[in-house]
Amino acid sequence: MIIKLQHFVESRAFQNFIIAVIVVNAITLGLETWPTAMAHAGSLLLALDQIALAIFVVEIVLKLVVYRASFFRSGWNVFDFTIVAITVAPVDEGLAVLRSLRILRALRLISVLPSMRKVVSALLRALPGMGSVVSLLLLLFYIASVMATKLFAADFPDWFGSIGASLYTLFQIMTLESWSMGIVRPVMEAHPFAWIFFITFILLTTFAVLNLFIAIMVDAMSATEHVEQEETRTLVVEEHQAVMSELQAIRAELAVLRAAQFPAQNSSHTT
Amino acid sequence: MIIKLQHFVESRAFQNFIIAVIVVNAITLGLETWPTAMAHAGSLLLALDQIALAIFVVEIVLKLVVYRASFFRSGWNVFDFTIVAITVAPVDEGLAVLRSLRILRALRLISVLPSMRKVVSALLRALPGMGSVVSLLLLLFYIASVMATKLFAADFPDWFGSIGASLYTLFQIMTLESWSMGIVRPVMEAHPFAWIFFITFILLTTFAVLNLFIAIMVDAMSATEHVEQEETRTLVVEEHQAVMSELQAIRAELAVLRAAQFPAQNSSHTT
Amino acid sequence: MIIKLQHFVESRAFQNFIIAVIVVNAITLGLETWPTAMAHAGSLLLALDQIALAIFVVEIVLKLVVYRASFFRSGWNVFDFTIVAITVAPVDEGLAVLRSLRILRALRLISVLPSMRKVVSALLRALPGMGSVVSLLLLLFYIASVMATKLFAADFPDWFGSIGASLYTLFQIMTLESWSMGIVRPVMEAHPFAWIFFITFILLTTFAVLNLFIAIMVDAMSATEHVEQEETRTLVVEEHQAVMSELQAIRAELAVLRAAQFPAQNSSHTT
Amino acid sequence: MIIKLQHFVESRAFQNFIIAVIVVNAITLGLETWPTAMAHAGSLLLALDQIALAIFVVEIVLKLVVYRASFFRSGWNVFDFTIVAITVAPVDEGLAVLRSLRILRALRLISVLPSMRKVVSALLRALPGMGSVVSLLLLLFYIASVMATKLFAADFPDWFGSIGASLYTLFQIMTLESWSMGIVRPVMEAHPFAWIFFITFILLTTFAVLNLFIAIMVDAMSATEHVEQEETRTLVVEEHQAVMSELQAIRAELAVLRAAQFPAQNSSHTT
Repeated sequence: MIIKLQHFVESRAFQNFIIAVIVVNAITLGLETWPTAMAHAGSLLLALDQIALAIFVVEIVLKLVVYRASFFRSGWNVFDFTIVAITVAPVDEGLAVLRSLRILRALRLISVLPSMRKVVSALLRALPGMGSVVSLLLLLFYIASVMATKLFAADFPDWFGSIGASLYTLFQIMTLESWSMGIVRPVMEAHPFAWIFFITFILLTTFAVLNLFIAIMVDAMSATEHVEQEETRTLVVEEHQAVMSELQAIRAELAVLRAAQFPAQNSSHTT
Repeated sequence: MIIKLQHFVESRAFQNFIIAVIVVNAITLGLETWPTAMAHAGSLLLALDQIALAIFVVEIVLKLVVYRASFFRSGWNVFDFTIVAITVAPVDEGLAVLRSLRILRALRLISVLPSMRKVVSALLRALPGMGSVVSLLLLLFYIASVMATKLFAADFPDWFGSIGASLYTLFQIMTLESWSMGIVRPVMEAHPFAWIFFITFILLTTFAVLNLFIAIMVDAMSATEHVEQEETRTLVVEEHQAVMSELQAIRAELAVLRAAQFPAQNSSHTT
Repeated sequence: MIIKLQHFVESRAFQNFIIAVIVVNAITLGLETWPTAMAHAGSLLLALDQIALAIFVVEIVLKLVVYRASFFRSGWNVFDFTIVAITVAPVDEGLAVLRSLRILRALRLISVLPSMRKVVSALLRALPGMGSVVSLLLLLFYIASVMATKLFAADFPDWFGSIGASLYTLFQIMTLESWSMGIVRPVMEAHPFAWIFFITFILLTTFAVLNLFIAIMVDAMSATEHVEQEETRTLVVEEHQAVMSELQAIRAELAVLRAAQFPAQNSSHTT
Repeated sequence: MIIKLQHFVESRAFQNFIIAVIVVNAITLGLETWPTAMAHAGSLLLALDQIALAIFVVEIVLKLVVYRASFFRSGWNVFDFTIVAITVAPVDEGLAVLRSLRILRALRLISVLPSMRKVVSALLRALPGMGSVVSLLLLLFYIASVMATKLFAADFPDWFGSIGASLYTLFQIMTLESWSMGIVRPVMEAHPFAWIFFITFILLTTFAVLNLFIAIMVDAMSATEHVEQEETRTLVVEEHQAVMSELQAIRAELAVLRAAQFPAQNSSHTT
């Protein structure tokens, strides 16, 4: 029974059906934002959304039945489960934010399409190499936001009123968006030396982000390089073995020749 | 007859003439935007444009006569044909947009100059490697624009009033142009937690674009790397063959020597 | 006695204690920026800060006692010493700027956590390779700021009133922040040809920064490349030695054979 | 006489003196922008500038006497000559722009300092590889500016009133500065589909610039890669020659052996 279910769940047809449901659901959720569509076919769109959700829930339940505990061993299953779980609650009503999360179901395209899975896996593989530089950046951000709050909170509460506000403003400055005309020049009217703080911050974070970027790149390139070099090394080793076996055959011949010439002497010293 | 035509169409002189027409046409189209030039020589400029167009049409017709169906097998011919076809309609009057498209004929410089062709081919070769990351980006944009429309359409109809408006605004945010002072800070006045949505979007899209960039780069580098390694491997293989043929000659000598010493025994076990 | 102290200072427990103090201190300094926290527990927070500072001073003193002059041989010790020295003065009162520098103590996390040390060392290693391009950039900035001050000081004193103001504005322009709408378009109202100066400046500095970036990257990649190639070369050399020793063994065999055939002749010409 | 002059001109002392004059002149030209300095020592600063210029002229004249026509064979001499020639005319009075060019003399630091020369040479070496992509970019800019002028000149004369104005605005858009909030959103009020033009332009130019960047990088990396591979290949060739000469020695031995066994037979078939 469960074997049959597993065949069904893993069948090409079932997967294509799920892909179709995800795409249709993404489209109906898009149409829901269009007042004209809602006016003419609002209840249809909402019904389709409910049906799609029901199908996703059934899919998850089927997979849970089939795979049981091992279901959660696959990161992609956890991903699907989380997305469906997030969007199962607020089907008809609820907070606008929760309702807007329903479109996250379109992210399931990533887990059902192998090519998408591959890209995202590749992107995720770049993350561990970024860990240490990211933690350095977070430390820099924390220190800079405490300093900025201490220094500028009184005069610029909107931008630096709390550590949270400062973190946001410093993130904006790191992206270089309106950092000078929008933030630093006004701040310099009250604190003429504020540029020391902000330009240091920009130079440090830019340099760190640039090194983050370089680290990912060098990692990607080294992998390619390593594959090519391994191929060369394998070739060198194979040819070496061919030469060595030929040389050993020659020594064997020589040993035979010598044995014939010095029949009394054994070939003990021929290594 | 057609052979003669082909010689004519493929002659250096004809190609140089076409290049000259393209350049002159690009200049006259530029001059058309200059009111002083139009006031003094407007009809001349328009006449030159018509003549240039006529020459391009004749060129295409000649090539169609010479190459027939195989004309469309070359991507560059399709490119030329499309550009001339687009600009043939609105010669004298018509919509301003259609008239403005006439300058696209200058793009034909790319197809007639071999060095330009090479650059554009190189750029196009980078595209397939970008496919999967670009489709991931498009999915992210669609999801983010549906969410943004659901959440912010009511309060900010200019920026997030429809999926189209949201896509445009999110593209602007991805380029980091006025994302904070222009868009996110005003939105946060009404939705204090909007930064979660926008900063997540910025981090995800920036990371994806960065990986797009890295993918192109690693591809370009791997090609170079592969060529160098192939050269090394070819060298290793050639030298290996030289060594092996020398070794085989030595074994042949040894076989002769042994045959002389053990005339009765055949050399069957010398492999 | 000092050996015992050294064991204590270098013990895992002591180092973990210092890490804990740094983290707690960073948190209390963060809380000091939160008016509610200050209202309820202000004196506690200030007391904790004083205790943390006292611990840091004791730590430095202990290390000075243990290592004496060699204490300053380690760059990280100098770093710790400087940070504590900077923040020791303005404990209770003083200028807001000096008080805000206390959060710099959180930077000590870099020197106490080995993983952080490694990242920062890697970043610092990129600096020497940047030296020459950075000095070229500084020269460009100085020249451009003198020119900008000469040309635009009279009309735009806020942006180009002095060399300092010009340097800041040019840095803003290099980061491309509001360079056109904010600075160059207004300047062009008074000086129509100002775009020549600014666009040249943007192109030159962008090109220099880009080459800075490429220099760091090529350095990082060359290191990886060199390691891989060294591995290949070591392999080639090792196998070469194996082949050569086999060949020498064969020649030794041949020498024996020949010696047997020509007993009178010595093997002087067999190299 | 001229030999002696040449020794003098090429002496370390003379070169250091010129470096000192360049630095002092750069400082006095900087001070000239400072009203307080001009009020107290204006005539001194202007006199120093005249003296510096006189020294530079004498230096060029000396070098012309020494090297004659071959003076202009060195690019750096042409560079020095041009800079001094540009700044020789407007010593006391003249247009503000010409006066401001005097600070360009500080650029001579590049030609007199070997480390600076090296950096600039390296930067210039990257230029030829950029040629084809840059000409493609220029073509794109020309086409886009003619189109933009045709389409938007009537409504937005400040931004797109002429080809020149359009080129400047499109350069601004390529740098992403205020492209949306500053330019494209206002334009879309009048031309709702303007985003098609501008977003296409941004995608094309960004992609081209990115490939420019990648081209420079791959060039720099390939050079490094090539050097490493050449080293490996040299090693492989050297070891191959060692093996081959050993093998030939072995064959020579074998030939001797065989000659002894078959004295009548010549060794014609031993290849």
